[in-house]
Amino acid sequence: MSEAKLLFEAFKETKYQVSGHGKRDIQVLKNALQNLDGKQESDIYGNGPIIEEFQTKMAEYLGKEKAVFFPSGTMAQQIALRIWCDDRGSKKVAYHPLCHLEIHEEVGLKELHHIQSILLADKDRLIELEDVSNMDEEVACILLELPQREIGGQLPDYATIESISMYCRNQGIRLHLDGARLFEILPYYEKTAAEVCSLFDSVYVSFYKGIGGVAGAILAGDKVFTDKSKIWKRRHGGDLISLYPYIVSANYYFDENEQRMNQFYYDAIELALYFNSCDSVSTIPLVPVSNMFHVHFQASREEVEPILAELYKETSIGLTGYLKEMTQKSCSFEVNVGNQYARLPKEKLKRVFQLLDKKLRKS
Amino acid sequence: MSEAKLLFEAFKETKYQVSGHGKRDIQVLKNALQNLDGKQESDIYGNGPIIEEFQTKMAEYLGKEKAVFFPSGTMAQQIALRIWCDDRGSKKVAYHPLCHLEIHEEVGLKELHHIQSILLADKDRLIELEDVSNMDEEVACILLELPQREIGGQLPDYATIESISMYCRNQGIRLHLDGARLFEILPYYEKTAAEVCSLFDSVYVSFYKGIGGVAGAILAGDKVFTDKSKIWKRRHGGDLISLYPYIVSANYYFDENEQRMNQFYYDAIELALYFNSCDSVSTIPLVPVSNMFHVHFQASREEVEPILAELYKETSIGLTGYLKEMTQKSCSFEVNVGNQYARLPKEKLKRVFQLLDKKLRKS
Repeated sequence: MSEAKLLFEAFKETKYQVSGHGKRDIQVLKNALQNLDGKQESDIYGNGPIIEEFQTKMAEYLGKEKAVFFPSGTMAQQIALRIWCDDRGSKKVAYHPLCHLEIHEEVGLKELHHIQSILLADKDRLIELEDVSNMDEEVACILLELPQREIGGQLPDYATIESISMYCRNQGIRLHLDGARLFEILPYYEKTAAEVCSLFDSVYVSFYKGIGGVAGAILAGDKVFTDKSKIWKRRHGGDLISLYPYIVSANYYFDENEQRMNQFYYDAIELALYFNSCDSVSTIPLVPVSNMFHVHFQASREEVEPILAELYKETSIGLTGYLKEMTQKSCSFEVNVGNQYARLPKEKLKRVFQLLDKKLRKS
Repeated sequence: MSEAKLLFEAFKETKYQVSGHGKRDIQVLKNALQNLDGKQESDIYGNGPIIEEFQTKMAEYLGKEKAVFFPSGTMAQQIALRIWCDDRGSKKVAYHPLCHLEIHEEVGLKELHHIQSILLADKDRLIELEDVSNMDEEVACILLELPQREIGGQLPDYATIESISMYCRNQGIRLHLDGARLFEILPYYEKTAAEVCSLFDSVYVSFYKGIGGVAGAILAGDKVFTDKSKIWKRRHGGDLISLYPYIVSANYYFDENEQRMNQFYYDAIELALYFNSCDSVSTIPLVPVSNMFHVHFQASREEVEPILAELYKETSIGLTGYLKEMTQKSCSFEVNVGNQYARLPKEKLKRVFQLLDKKLRKS
């Protein structure tokens, strides 16, 4: 078996894991359905109380006129950008080089919508006002992802978002929020979701990251925008006869976990401190600004894999099931703190990192 | 309240309904999950036993090399046609004027894929070999829908499908099956699904019509085709982290209802006889060739609505919740026979149609 596979297997065998909400198994859906009346009627192609009530709840939470439930963020965001492009009569949008639409969607935005992307900023840093104001291209829309997931979940100063928002309004450029992890950043900014969203024309949020649902997304904005999004949802094949399996689980876990985002944030800060106390380990950001961060080792994947696998066997606490090779001499993985952190035996956790530090020094 | 609304309300109050499997409520999902182990792991972006095993099962059932689970038929079929167009280097496909892609998808095929549709045959009849062989246009693909839903679920002779299939193969035209109701037509043709599918290059089937699941679809074909379809599924936003709510219900109700298609078919023939015994009522087809048919009244919607509402109150058996205006002097509705037919008190059913006949004669 490869070292990568051995690490994965050792991780799966651990009793505790530092990140996430736990296994993605069908119990997640069963729990959400457990106390619901079986007689509650399905949504039918976007209509019916089960979908409309959740959309209204989310529109209010996000401070937008209307909200539409989508099976996925991939679908919701392509559609948002397409609507703003059609409005402006332009086929260009701007976003970060590591935007989800650029690297994880098989370039659906180009293949389906023929929209060209202008990349703002460098790969390894956040978008600043200057990146936007110095842009040569006329774009219909700018997408900001908060936090910027692929660089560890970094966040700009709130004033930067405000200034970009004001700039876009003055220039007639639409500003869209990739809020896949919007709930998770509210404790750091000390803002409500509605306050953050007021800086954007359209907003997408996800229900299977910090919220811990099965899948599904909300796209919110004004009524003209969301009405158009429903037509595109049908075109994409997302206007299912029944979306309720995702809606009821989104609603259930929203009620359960949205209020825990403060806890996840503080836990992430604590956990990052543990990692940073180890030799040749550092986190990005150094101090997390949400429930997430990336852990970087100044050692090769091949060196670290067996060290972690051994650590898991000795402690039964898992840190990660994989390592991503960054260079020949460095590797990394992502942490998203969820409900599992609070279940850890804290006295053992300290010992895990002392052991890790020792093993890394030896190697 | 309008007469249409009164009819709908009266229908909802009936104890028995002649068509369908029953209410689309969340109990449908609960039943499917009931006996499943909560520890069963979710599919993750198209991978994992829960999705792979069902895909393998369906590929075998349909006699195709590979099958891919999709959230919707809308998505699956646009993608199938796009793949065949790209293969052939053409942007034209041909199908019936009342094809789902033409009338129910907000022209996603054109808006997202820039594919032009050539309409075969007249609206009110089936596609024949001559419609195909007389076509002036060079198309990449022809889509056949079996049964042709919008004209009552009519079916061509099996020899017609065979001849169209042979013609397409000789001409290098791909043949795609819209098999939204494929399971439902097998008793009439006395063929297996694999036998029917062998005449087509690609096949879509649905799990919430005769099968009675929550939602979801399978697209099947050879591996080169299905591999491409997975890339397009991601582009469309259909490659969800978890599709299992639809997969487990599709699997559960497939096992339950696929074997009942014979029964649904015979029940439909019996039920159509009842309708045809009434004054100014006729069905299309006159003798059903699947579990479905359309009921036509030679009377205006405004005349028939109160008659049906009254009938439901007197008998507590519901025939339809709506009427579609065809002309000023005719209206219709669709019947899809499912599990509810077997639950009807048969002695009462005869009486319902005697009463209906009487009421229609009086009006």
